[in-house]
Amino acid sequence: MNALVAQSGGPSPVINASLQGVIEGCRAYPGRIQTLYAAWHGIEGVLNEELIDLYAQDPEEIALLKHTPASGAIGTCRYKLTSEQDEDFDRIIEVFRAHDIGYFFYIGGNDSMDTAHKVSDLAHAKGLDVSCTGVPKTIDNDVGDPDFKFLDHTPGYGSTARYWAGIIRDTNEENRGMCPSECVSVLQAMGRKAGFIPAAARLADPSREMPLQIYMAEAHHTLESLHENVNRQLRATARCIVVVSEGFDVGELGEAHDGFGHIEYGASKTCAAQVVAGYLNDHGLAARGQATWQVPGVLQRSMSAHQSPVDRDEALAVGRHAVEVAMEQGTGFMATIVRAAGDTYRAEYGHAPLEKIANSFRPLPAAWITDDGIDVTDDFIRYAQPFVGEGMTAGGERFARIAPRFVDRRLATYIPMRCREMITVKPEAKTA
Amino acid sequence: MNALVAQSGGPSPVINASLQGVIEGCRAYPGRIQTLYAAWHGIEGVLNEELIDLYAQDPEEIALLKHTPASGAIGTCRYKLTSEQDEDFDRIIEVFRAHDIGYFFYIGGNDSMDTAHKVSDLAHAKGLDVSCTGVPKTIDNDVGDPDFKFLDHTPGYGSTARYWAGIIRDTNEENRGMCPSECVSVLQAMGRKAGFIPAAARLADPSREMPLQIYMAEAHHTLESLHENVNRQLRATARCIVVVSEGFDVGELGEAHDGFGHIEYGASKTCAAQVVAGYLNDHGLAARGQATWQVPGVLQRSMSAHQSPVDRDEALAVGRHAVEVAMEQGTGFMATIVRAAGDTYRAEYGHAPLEKIANSFRPLPAAWITDDGIDVTDDFIRYAQPFVGEGMTAGGERFARIAPRFVDRRLATYIPMRCREMITVKPEAKTA
Repeated sequence: MNALVAQSGGPSPVINASLQGVIEGCRAYPGRIQTLYAAWHGIEGVLNEELIDLYAQDPEEIALLKHTPASGAIGTCRYKLTSEQDEDFDRIIEVFRAHDIGYFFYIGGNDSMDTAHKVSDLAHAKGLDVSCTGVPKTIDNDVGDPDFKFLDHTPGYGSTARYWAGIIRDTNEENRGMCPSECVSVLQAMGRKAGFIPAAARLADPSREMPLQIYMAEAHHTLESLHENVNRQLRATARCIVVVSEGFDVGELGEAHDGFGHIEYGASKTCAAQVVAGYLNDHGLAARGQATWQVPGVLQRSMSAHQSPVDRDEALAVGRHAVEVAMEQGTGFMATIVRAAGDTYRAEYGHAPLEKIANSFRPLPAAWITDDGIDVTDDFIRYAQPFVGEGMTAGGERFARIAPRFVDRRLATYIPMRCREMITVKPEAKTA
Repeated sequence: MNALVAQSGGPSPVINASLQGVIEGCRAYPGRIQTLYAAWHGIEGVLNEELIDLYAQDPEEIALLKHTPASGAIGTCRYKLTSEQDEDFDRIIEVFRAHDIGYFFYIGGNDSMDTAHKVSDLAHAKGLDVSCTGVPKTIDNDVGDPDFKFLDHTPGYGSTARYWAGIIRDTNEENRGMCPSECVSVLQAMGRKAGFIPAAARLADPSREMPLQIYMAEAHHTLESLHENVNRQLRATARCIVVVSEGFDVGELGEAHDGFGHIEYGASKTCAAQVVAGYLNDHGLAARGQATWQVPGVLQRSMSAHQSPVDRDEALAVGRHAVEVAMEQGTGFMATIVRAAGDTYRAEYGHAPLEKIANSFRPLPAAWITDDGIDVTDDFIRYAQPFVGEGMTAGGERFARIAPRFVDRRLATYIPMRCREMITVKPEAKTA
């Protein structure tokens, strides 16, 4: 028999590490798996019978996979399969039969696990002996059980979280330095429904020294409450960093997240960060300067520079483990990452029935959101920090801190000419 | 006498390396410089008499400066000084006199060099013996002489160029992988008037394998010509990466770059990337999928992960050299980076009169833009690659390449159900 691997949905910075894991896993069973095919651009590649023999590829390229972000290696797709698409499902089974596919590995999120589950059921109904096994992947971390027991986190999230920890540290330097003129930095994070990605901004600053506010979809803030929170911060520190989920509810002011199918960054529409920055500027800031906005967009799921080594290793390991699951458990399971008991973080690998993952959704737990709804608790930090890795957080490298101790004044107070008609809020503290 | 250092304008990823260089340079003259002050938030700190004694700071923090991006260490400002602001200029001289400032180092772009020049002239007119010396800084690289003789490039540009080389390589993986549904990636680069920053996208792919188009302000493309170019690319490869300068002329469709003073990412207005993506989607794409947009914004001037080691070392060295210039040449010069003669890249340090830099503007040379106006020539690559550094370009690490060689088909052609009514352009080549 042969094996087949495919990817689905948006990529992650470590999705190819899982692909490499599946390849390595299959190689360990030369007696049971003759070769491993990749479907070119996900399930569309299966439907189009566009299969690539991965065993025939240069081993040097396979070894590079774990360092290659996004899904450019074998492609992915946004092709949705619903129960009504009988012809498509029949075609999949037909392609499996034609190429002696005995093992199917599907790397993806909850939609993909639903597809894998349906294919598994249908194949068996049609008398085809194929093991369908899921490999988890989503930067959103919104797949799994609410108790984090059978899926602690999804590969990909660690790297995207590391990206946010990194850019918020950088943005804090930017915002500190520019604050007389650009006092509020608004950054838009992915995660339309679940707040795990914006929450990771807190990993930039576990000791809570930055003037950082995080607006997760789960906290249900409004433009009005955000404006009030930001001005409270500005009165204290004259600057503020605001991370908004792309799913922040801007009410009538935006069409940002009606979405275009699955495309997060639809063209030409105003997005959440723009609406937020515009609202702040239009409604008055309690400090000198303006709000600006940044939308890093898909860079947060495709960057290589911020790939978390822990996330990468786990993504590879869970891909490899999926082959074990297929061999030992048979069809209908997803390989999982489980947190080992004990104080020291260690990932273990398990499995869960695909039907428990299919179309599951896990929001950021309410218990991990602070009472004011603009931050996460220490429990979240303890949860996420280990797989984000060292070096990007306060525990690792840090930036220079020049203490703003002014030398004794020798002259009378002077108001610079251009400041005479501006709002001048003297920060109470500008030490973060 | 004491020395004073200040920063001005938007930051760069290595601006603090120049600050560290000035500190180290001053330390080498204990007989002539008693201490070095930093003005808190640029010239505003001078006007407000907010001075910090840098010699009294923890040496560990000073040593961290070169790795600390943006201007959070001592702050910067957008305070513009024009000839009419007599009171402000008088105040500056007064503060210099009160604190025995004999050396003034101003880290900034062309505006700042103009200010330093005016302060130098005024001080001497008032009989104050102060050496005013400029330290170049701007990610835009748009300061200097058109022949690149006395200023080869500005510190900061190398790191921002490296950021673009890095994210375009990542975006190529993203766009390759997602191309059935997200076929055009539009990224907006800083550089309202000069194309050096978008041009650096080419450093991601010196061998020109990616479907990359670069729209620099100097090339005067329109939405119509861009649309035509993109569709030509889509007919060939079914995907395209578009880098637009924030100064791309979107005509009536955008108010993106009217600017808010010096703020590049004004809130609530539609920006160039959005208009471009929207126009492409509204006017039809010659491939399946949609155009999406990303605006990394100020991250490109404040990120630490993409700091170029060459740029960092040069920024430090030019800061140190500025002290030599002040000691040996007297007032009224800017320290410069000059390219040593010969085939191997090597930076040397020189000086140029401030008046030659003040308010100078250097666009990307027309000779470095290709005839079609959507790419840069090999001469540009040879110019910029050395100070962007190794590792982020094709010469260094690379990503995995799985050859899309499909195994022989065993079944009749099938059109997936959801593709039956879509435009399906088969790419001629999808190998980049």
